[in-house]
Amino acid sequence: MKAVKRIAIIGGTHGNEKTGAWLLKKFMKRPELVRREGFETVLRISNEKAVERCVRYIEEDLNRRFNPVELADPEKNSYEALLAKELNEELGPKGAEKTAVDFIVDLHTTTSAMGVTAILDSENALAWQAATYLKAHDPDVRIFTWKGDTGESDFVHSIAPAGFALEVGPIPQGVLRADIFEKTERAVHHILDFFEKLNAGTLEERAAEVEVYDSVTLLDFPRDEEGEIAGMVHPELQDHDYKELKKGDPLFMTLEGAVIPYEGEEPLHAVFVNEAAYYEKGFAMALSRKILKRLSWSDSVAPAGEASTALDEGNP
Amino acid sequence: MKAVKRIAIIGGTHGNEKTGAWLLKKFMKRPELVRREGFETVLRISNEKAVERCVRYIEEDLNRRFNPVELADPEKNSYEALLAKELNEELGPKGAEKTAVDFIVDLHTTTSAMGVTAILDSENALAWQAATYLKAHDPDVRIFTWKGDTGESDFVHSIAPAGFALEVGPIPQGVLRADIFEKTERAVHHILDFFEKLNAGTLEERAAEVEVYDSVTLLDFPRDEEGEIAGMVHPELQDHDYKELKKGDPLFMTLEGAVIPYEGEEPLHAVFVNEAAYYEKGFAMALSRKILKRLSWSDSVAPAGEASTALDEGNP
Repeated sequence: MKAVKRIAIIGGTHGNEKTGAWLLKKFMKRPELVRREGFETVLRISNEKAVERCVRYIEEDLNRRFNPVELADPEKNSYEALLAKELNEELGPKGAEKTAVDFIVDLHTTTSAMGVTAILDSENALAWQAATYLKAHDPDVRIFTWKGDTGESDFVHSIAPAGFALEVGPIPQGVLRADIFEKTERAVHHILDFFEKLNAGTLEERAAEVEVYDSVTLLDFPRDEEGEIAGMVHPELQDHDYKELKKGDPLFMTLEGAVIPYEGEEPLHAVFVNEAAYYEKGFAMALSRKILKRLSWSDSVAPAGEASTALDEGNP
Repeated sequence: MKAVKRIAIIGGTHGNEKTGAWLLKKFMKRPELVRREGFETVLRISNEKAVERCVRYIEEDLNRRFNPVELADPEKNSYEALLAKELNEELGPKGAEKTAVDFIVDLHTTTSAMGVTAILDSENALAWQAATYLKAHDPDVRIFTWKGDTGESDFVHSIAPAGFALEVGPIPQGVLRADIFEKTERAVHHILDFFEKLNAGTLEERAAEVEVYDSVTLLDFPRDEEGEIAGMVHPELQDHDYKELKKGDPLFMTLEGAVIPYEGEEPLHAVFVNEAAYYEKGFAMALSRKILKRLSWSDSVAPAGEASTALDEGNP
């Protein structure tokens, strides 16, 4: 197992999700808060211009710009495409044997009532260990597995060999809230604790499995003939992310007040319910299956420098 | 008293406040919902381009573009300045003896927990009557008087001789919520009821006074040496708009967790607490005084066509 020597905490990947950026500003002023034994904590506000303007992005979503093909394409030169290449040089490069940082936690917020959710999009054992530790130490935390369309992660944290995104909500875009700020800060400390203990060989927990909301599908809003949104999330589902949906449960309410129910035979759980940023992507929520995922703790929990097959394999 | 013959319901003045725009889309498809005896209901999405892009504005805030000097200035030609002139031609012109519409209700939303709030910014008796009727018929409704910096209203509804803005929240920018949609729709119906009864001479209520939150001052966020926001609304105040603040009550919490209390001697009430759009304007909340405002009902409540000094005076 490679040593975990540099861990990056990133915020401001979406400039109107203020919490991460402001938490980083705080840490940058008081770096002792994130200084730990055994590794270096790297702090990076990824899209400063978008933070300044309080917009999700300047030209296109930065958090979809880390596809290796796009990173290598000299023709890709939007503001965020160039920024992605810069971040990749600085913290990666992605896929290399030796990268500038070993792990990335990317801080996001959501208008959905998702509490603190770790978004895992790979089978990387170290990422799963860190997320499981976080969940064990904070009962608010849930794990959601995101399946992109490409099979390849395009996210900022994919620059490093391992990492995940943290989504905290509900909070509107463009605002700071003390409660959401505090939850995010607490989660960062748990994650840093994990790496400190991992490196020191003092990790006490050995969970064999973890509860996961495993992405199944995305649901769009009801739409009219012109393709315009013609309904809203039903009040019984709004603010109730992770609620189990059984056949017949209300999903949407049309502008006219008619109820559109969930029609699936299998009970599933709604996530990212009414997230503002996904209106433009054309979905109202994700549906997920609640599963117990088996973890290969015994193989992979080892202090830095020690050999571990699970981490090297990457796909336990 | 002039006849109230055309009433405009406006939405989409801020393009990321989706509720008003979508309610208008609904009414445009089913105009019978807002058809009443005695007057015509005009429906207008004011900033369609901003609604399409889901941004507050394209170049500058449309809802500050209706100053008569600016409307008359040919040099003012930003996207919203030109749009303001177009709206002024269509619905006004502002200040004219004869205007295309007699009353404007402009539909907004806020990230603040303001419930349904009528924002009054003039002493116009008809606007006060309509807002008081609304409040009498919906216990959720509050009235807040906004005092601009100029003494002159720059708002969209100032094109008509009378009108007000409706703020409904909390709701993030860029989303639709069934509860906020329904509250806004209900308020519009009460306002239309008022005009129907006013014109028919069947208004049953004669309130002599109304409870009002009268604007006193605006409070900025705590800031650091560089002018950056260094604190957030305190959790005890967040989501509690209209709460009475007494000396010593917590106002803000710094990023470090220190409490900044309210220092004023006079108890005041916080409004527009942590509204996303006001970060760029540099204020965290408005403070207001709760007062009972006397109304000149007996003079002004009269069916269309009848003489009424109160309405002609405009400043009871």
